Amino acid sequence: MTEATGEAPPIPIRVVLVGLGKIACDQHLSALAKNPSLELVASVDPAAQGRDGLPHFTSLDALFQSDLAFDAAAVCTPPQVRSAIALRLLEAGKHVLLEKPPAATVEEISHLEERAATLGVTLFTAWHSRYAAGVRPAREWLGGKQIRSVAIVWREDVHIWHPRQPWIWRPGGFGVFDPGINALSIATEILPHPLRVTHSALQYPANCEAPVAAQVQLEDSGGLEVSVDLDFRQKGSQTWTITVDTDEGTLELLQGGSVLSTPDGIQASEDEEYSTLYEHFARLMREGRSHVDMAPLRLANDALLLGSIERVEELNV
Amino acid sequence: MTEATGEAPPIPIRVVLVGLGKIACDQHLSALAKNPSLELVASVDPAAQGRDGLPHFTSLDALFQSDLAFDAAAVCTPPQVRSAIALRLLEAGKHVLLEKPPAATVEEISHLEERAATLGVTLFTAWHSRYAAGVRPAREWLGGKQIRSVAIVWREDVHIWHPRQPWIWRPGGFGVFDPGINALSIATEILPHPLRVTHSALQYPANCEAPVAAQVQLEDSGGLEVSVDLDFRQKGSQTWTITVDTDEGTLELLQGGSVLSTPDGIQASEDEEYSTLYEHFARLMREGRSHVDMAPLRLANDALLLGSIERVEELNV
Repeated sequence: MTEATGEAPPIPIRVVLVGLGKIACDQHLSALAKNPSLELVASVDPAAQGRDGLPHFTSLDALFQSDLAFDAAAVCTPPQVRSAIALRLLEAGKHVLLEKPPAATVEEISHLEERAATLGVTLFTAWHSRYAAGVRPAREWLGGKQIRSVAIVWREDVHIWHPRQPWIWRPGGFGVFDPGINALSIATEILPHPLRVTHSALQYPANCEAPVAAQVQLEDSGGLEVSVDLDFRQKGSQTWTITVDTDEGTLELLQGGSVLSTPDGIQASEDEEYSTLYEHFARLMREGRSHVDMAPLRLANDALLLGSIERVEELNV
Repeated sequence: MTEATGEAPPIPIRVVLVGLGKIACDQHLSALAKNPSLELVASVDPAAQGRDGLPHFTSLDALFQSDLAFDAAAVCTPPQVRSAIALRLLEAGKHVLLEKPPAATVEEISHLEERAATLGVTLFTAWHSRYAAGVRPAREWLGGKQIRSVAIVWREDVHIWHPRQPWIWRPGGFGVFDPGINALSIATEILPHPLRVTHSALQYPANCEAPVAAQVQLEDSGGLEVSVDLDFRQKGSQTWTITVDTDEGTLELLQGGSVLSTPDGIQASEDEEYSTLYEHFARLMREGRSHVDMAPLRLANDALLLGSIERVEELNV
């Protein structure tokens, strides 16, 4: 209560969750519940069950036809349909948070960005890994140091982390770039200059339209080389590591960015990625701003467009 | 001679042709020879024979190590290596014309555009089909009319038009989008609003890394639909047609844009695409401007990224 100060608490911004799949249930529901500036008022999903006590719709049409009032939406669908859904929401005057990857292609985001600006609503491309505990201190530690090379290794078992998500293997589904784009979102956040793809090799399972593994070479305008090793077929211990070699020693971001190791020691703290992400979204809406960054998507798009394709063993999807 | 006016003729801009393949020999050599503002001073190609009387180098390194002076380059290599070559030329302070497609990806062009601006040299993304005789009158005829639908049909026999060009089938080679991007360059020139890809279906030969045929749906911001039918397997009569249905009758651009048919009659004139293109390049250099348009490349990139992939019969490449 803020009665003591004489101010009423701000009215929460009413949010609809569109796409109630794994990431929405694992992260968005609890992050929204913890944020007093935001109020989850409904969910939309054609297939998933709704949550107890929360209005649920099986389509955007049904949501719009209801008299449910809302201000914003978090779009957590597969990326192939994300931009069309986001466009309808923007055109209806709603603020939009896009889960990562924000769309299948950069061009789709350019269109959404332009529409959001014209319509005066907030668009937020939410790269959640950038809010991992080690990322900001990593960027600060690197500031002013001479970076010699960067190696990204992102190897996980798709059957553990993406069960029953066939959309990953369809066109626009990104395959191993679905997790890999998290690494790219961190790299583009902590490194000082823009990156571009100079080489890409992709392995596609015989039965899939997206790669299961990729070896990508990036370079920045100063000639800094970044190697990217992505693999969805990892068994046993899983690896999500970015290693940055500098003139003052080696920095390692481990466990997807939550643990930071430098010559000064190791920092680790509790995962607050989605809480911080929703705080940022709430602030953007209050301030009437958008935050659109396409750099990780640009790199993933280019790696897919430029990559040599090797067909490998069928995957059980 | 301009002695009568008391002015000396301007010194020609010295141009090097980088990539002496089919399009350079078919079009660039004669267009350069016809333009008094430009002087072809050398060619560069690792494989092709040079032309009689014209200095020839087998690499950019060899060109730069020679003492040959030049001001500009037309880059007619396969698209996969175009941006790296263009970057070296720009960094050396040379003006650059990029044959179409100007690079494998939009991102590569963004980088070149930024460098050209910083370095104060001209960059020109040369979409030659936009200079076909019917294109400008088509745009003018469409001005102010209500467009109902657009259909693009681009069907040719790859073995006739692209003999011994294996790069087309490698990553970044575009496959049937290599000719198809000509149609996209015309459509984006004559239609009033930006287009985006809403649907794409691609057929890849079992032995190729690029599509041999594609069916793509485009839409503009006003809901106008554009269907695109590309096929590299056409036998017999070849088709390069854009049909625009309006409230005042049907416009047809035939034979790749050189013939225009409207309810007012048929216009056809001699092909001057590359002459006009080089006149434009010369003007850009004289005026110290760049002309960069990525719209056709954006559409081709998105059609490739979003397309469903069907494997079809092996192609003899």
